[in-house]
Amino acid sequence: MNTSALPIQMRGAPDIIRLHGHRGARGVLPENTLIGFRNTFEIGVRAVEIDIMITADGVPVLTHNPSLMAAATRGPDGRWLERDSKPVVQMSHDELQQFDVGGLRDGTAYAARYPDQAFLSGIKIPDLAQLVNMVLEPEFADVWLNIEIKSNPDHPDEAPTLPRLVAPVLAVINAAGIADRVLLQSFDWRVLTEIARQAPHIPRSYLTYETRKHPTMAVNVIDGSPWMDGASLAAHNGSIPQVVSNLGGAVWSPYFKDITAKALAEAQALGLVVNVWTVNERADINRMIDLGVDGIITDYPARAQRCLLAKGLSWHEDVTPMPR
Amino acid sequence: MNTSALPIQMRGAPDIIRLHGHRGARGVLPENTLIGFRNTFEIGVRAVEIDIMITADGVPVLTHNPSLMAAATRGPDGRWLERDSKPVVQMSHDELQQFDVGGLRDGTAYAARYPDQAFLSGIKIPDLAQLVNMVLEPEFADVWLNIEIKSNPDHPDEAPTLPRLVAPVLAVINAAGIADRVLLQSFDWRVLTEIARQAPHIPRSYLTYETRKHPTMAVNVIDGSPWMDGASLAAHNGSIPQVVSNLGGAVWSPYFKDITAKALAEAQALGLVVNVWTVNERADINRMIDLGVDGIITDYPARAQRCLLAKGLSWHEDVTPMPR
Repeated sequence: MNTSALPIQMRGAPDIIRLHGHRGARGVLPENTLIGFRNTFEIGVRAVEIDIMITADGVPVLTHNPSLMAAATRGPDGRWLERDSKPVVQMSHDELQQFDVGGLRDGTAYAARYPDQAFLSGIKIPDLAQLVNMVLEPEFADVWLNIEIKSNPDHPDEAPTLPRLVAPVLAVINAAGIADRVLLQSFDWRVLTEIARQAPHIPRSYLTYETRKHPTMAVNVIDGSPWMDGASLAAHNGSIPQVVSNLGGAVWSPYFKDITAKALAEAQALGLVVNVWTVNERADINRMIDLGVDGIITDYPARAQRCLLAKGLSWHEDVTPMPR
Repeated sequence: MNTSALPIQMRGAPDIIRLHGHRGARGVLPENTLIGFRNTFEIGVRAVEIDIMITADGVPVLTHNPSLMAAATRGPDGRWLERDSKPVVQMSHDELQQFDVGGLRDGTAYAARYPDQAFLSGIKIPDLAQLVNMVLEPEFADVWLNIEIKSNPDHPDEAPTLPRLVAPVLAVINAAGIADRVLLQSFDWRVLTEIARQAPHIPRSYLTYETRKHPTMAVNVIDGSPWMDGASLAAHNGSIPQVVSNLGGAVWSPYFKDITAKALAEAQALGLVVNVWTVNERADINRMIDLGVDGIITDYPARAQRCLLAKGLSWHEDVTPMPR
């Protein structure tokens, strides 16, 4: 990947930090749903970050976890799942359509994290193709997709083999002719290697988490980690940006608590775009803005709009910050 | 008004408290805009509370203040208004269409009150007729409108004469055949008297504020107040519910900090429905739920959905609270 080929709308610019609505706008609408994506585009945010799993019959669908979360899923009988579902990769597309992912189950820790998220009913897990059709609507001509392909090298049973994981995603993208409107990201860099093989022209984003303080995740960037697909930090002065650059990444996407001014400067000097995830509290959003990242992935894209404007910045060329 | 004629969807019920999205959903989307109304309906909330002013050429438009707020309005040149506009009643419908009400101006006190409200551009002040058309879409067949007609007896220059204030609103409602899907409310009870004269079959809601602690408003219910259109508290044991009932009101709509368990019980015993405004903080929403009001008017309808579900309650018959 020549990073100079990264489309302009995916890069930061002077006075512009791009906003990515995380799973749509998880803070206010159910995650990875068409209504969440549409609302994010309608408020003027130009990118959504989404999660892909592949069904047993090979359909890319938009859902985050290897199994459907009990805290966010009602079954065909309209009742909450008693436990997480069987793996998505073992279910057909039709089977998945029987679940309702429109709301969070009160009393769960997950629901408590998003107390302002609307509660809908009758909301199906969308296909990637449905979102792509939305992106093709004329009013959304300038939106784009930050697509995370879910895969876990420690649990290869949770996804198809790498070629069969990547190919159906690329097929949907290519059928719609939107290769220039997608960024492909993964924590599992083996997926990114496979993308480089099948579609070297599509920019890749290398997701990382280094901190041990994250509530639910483990470190993926440490030498010997299966997530790094054999890449070596030691061979690059311990520098993640250098490794990502060497792998041909266009984007480095670290956990926001991991990023430092030094690492950001190094990445940007290497020509990498830096998108941080997932930044929700106002103070954290402001800190990332002040640091000067290229993109902010957030569950609260409207809040982040306001934080940018308050600093005389914007998220898109069409929105000019005005003097207070 | 025979309160028994109040449509069921406008009344509370066992396990149901109605939610009204205040000005759409001011907490998350710009107030009194089509995108705010649509989003509120799409998340499953069945009523929006809206504000009507009449233009110089007699068109009912949706906006709250006598003049367009500088803190929320950009002019034809795309720049913030330096001060509030001239009165809406002095502007034609076409003139009003030149303003952009899609966002709040950073640095103002008003913007600071709604830090999670999305920032859009190119958003016009809607006509009542546009919202009514939305309500006629098949998917919104069961939504209804709580329409506040703005009028100030101390500033009669801010609105047409009472007959000319009320008639155009009724004309839009009648043309669409949705008289059974609207509730008409006002702080200025002279407006409600005029509605009783022109359209006695449409239910009326008597808005009140008693507290002196409200940041921007003055008391409207006190004997001798021009807002009460000559009604007397003294003649009704000082009881607002009795006055409202005597005037043929179907609904009493007090400021939420004014309501007491005693007054609520009295109102409900009189057959009145009680809708409280404008309840935004989670603790306040929960207190109103526990008190047992019929309806809650809120800038955060999604948050209020979640508060209801957490207490095993709902806002509509279609949404059944499920065991936790």
